[in-house]
Amino acid sequence: MEIIASIRELRNSLNNQGHIAFVPTMGNLHDGHLKLVDIAKQHAQCVVVSIFVNPLQFGPHEDLANYPRTLEADCRKLQAAGANIVFTPSVKEMYPDAVSAGEGLNLRQTMKVTSPPIANELCGASRPGHFDGVATVVAKLFNIVQPDIAVFGKKDFQQLFIIRELVKQFNLPIEIIAGDTVREPSGLAMSSRNGYLTETQKNQAAQLYKMLESIVLRVRNGTAELGILADAASLALKELGWDVDYVSFRNQTTLMPATSEDKQLIVLAAAKLGTTRLIDNIDFLR
Amino acid sequence: MEIIASIRELRNSLNNQGHIAFVPTMGNLHDGHLKLVDIAKQHAQCVVVSIFVNPLQFGPHEDLANYPRTLEADCRKLQAAGANIVFTPSVKEMYPDAVSAGEGLNLRQTMKVTSPPIANELCGASRPGHFDGVATVVAKLFNIVQPDIAVFGKKDFQQLFIIRELVKQFNLPIEIIAGDTVREPSGLAMSSRNGYLTETQKNQAAQLYKMLESIVLRVRNGTAELGILADAASLALKELGWDVDYVSFRNQTTLMPATSEDKQLIVLAAAKLGTTRLIDNIDFLR
Repeated sequence: MEIIASIRELRNSLNNQGHIAFVPTMGNLHDGHLKLVDIAKQHAQCVVVSIFVNPLQFGPHEDLANYPRTLEADCRKLQAAGANIVFTPSVKEMYPDAVSAGEGLNLRQTMKVTSPPIANELCGASRPGHFDGVATVVAKLFNIVQPDIAVFGKKDFQQLFIIRELVKQFNLPIEIIAGDTVREPSGLAMSSRNGYLTETQKNQAAQLYKMLESIVLRVRNGTAELGILADAASLALKELGWDVDYVSFRNQTTLMPATSEDKQLIVLAAAKLGTTRLIDNIDFLR
Repeated sequence: MEIIASIRELRNSLNNQGHIAFVPTMGNLHDGHLKLVDIAKQHAQCVVVSIFVNPLQFGPHEDLANYPRTLEADCRKLQAAGANIVFTPSVKEMYPDAVSAGEGLNLRQTMKVTSPPIANELCGASRPGHFDGVATVVAKLFNIVQPDIAVFGKKDFQQLFIIRELVKQFNLPIEIIAGDTVREPSGLAMSSRNGYLTETQKNQAAQLYKMLESIVLRVRNGTAELGILADAASLALKELGWDVDYVSFRNQTTLMPATSEDKQLIVLAAAKLGTTRLIDNIDFLR
């Protein structure tokens, strides 16, 4: 397995590699990521994993500085999982005109991809600019790696949706494959941000998934009032001590609010335990 | 020479073509375009020329509906010039979710490339959104054609600058080559919009280039007051009956307003004769 930090070296290394499958990550890898690598291996001879904590997708008061960086452990896991190349660019490599500006960085990435209107709903409502930052860095990474397929996790379903739109609207010759969410035995969706949780919080955290599971069950059993169910779940989570951002039933294909005709549904939620913001979702048919 | 309207067919046809050089155009081809094709032929075995009048880069009161469309004549010229493939997508092919909306089109290209701040100056000041539309369609065309090199004319220098930024900021593996402006014997820069001019206006139109030539000569002869020269040229054009948008000396590399230290300069101008907006520029060293 090669570990490469420079775009030029990566391109040299990828020359004549045949089919390439790509898994972009922010590192601090868990079994959810390794599942995506596994899917990638089933689709191409050469699997490239990028590890890059992208400043452009963090808001000014978010956890960019504290985001867990565990490169050595990540590389050991990727080697064991059978990745061929790990791309670990610096901020300077990805944003060459970045300059220090006080506490932070001025990235001088003045050209960006703007996201579709859905980027202002769900997670986007409380994270303005987040999905523009995601779409921009993914467009850059796609152009650098030029993969045939790319694998994204369903846990970040809104992100997956926007990446699919990116590929469609910009005619990128890349097939996007979705990987199922990997969960702890408790049901808690694996996430790098779980590392922020205290032991007590971690025991509590599966409540989010269990709440979604219970309202999905009620819909599948015939309850039609999706809005009422979502509000009730939100209230119940609040009573359990969560600071709820949203619980929302949507159409799986369009991410628009679910109507009574929609069959392919997804329920998505975001809520904070203490200062840690967790997200989860379940897609299902009724 | 193949003429192809579908993205899928184009991709099939481009498979295993070796090096590809690409010349994006809006059609109504003149010798300036054919010069770009000639440059492309010197760089690659396969030359692709696109002809697409891109609605996304036209403002609501601009000449989209009347923009000259001359596909048959264009194809004859391209065949003679040695192009290998002409890509002539419909609006529906480039913006598949476009729907008619009253008089116009709702393109539903909700994800766009936003241009750098320079896009709000010079031509961008009077054409808001124009360069976002250019950058977006060029990004799409680049992803469709996946050329090794692409050739753009220097006549649209600000566009050339923004395309170079697009390639740099989005890490596109494409080399951009600039083609010199081709001129009528009078000095008038060739442009599809010259076809809007009356005979009288056409005789007058070379004044724009001659005015730029005369102030460039004065700078090369030692005149240092660039702002004063530009204002004088603007005033002189107005007295000749032009509706002047701007005359501006800039740094060739950054397109920032030229300072007294800059050696690599360019003077750019835009002005209307009647209802026809013409642009021109001269890059030079002092």
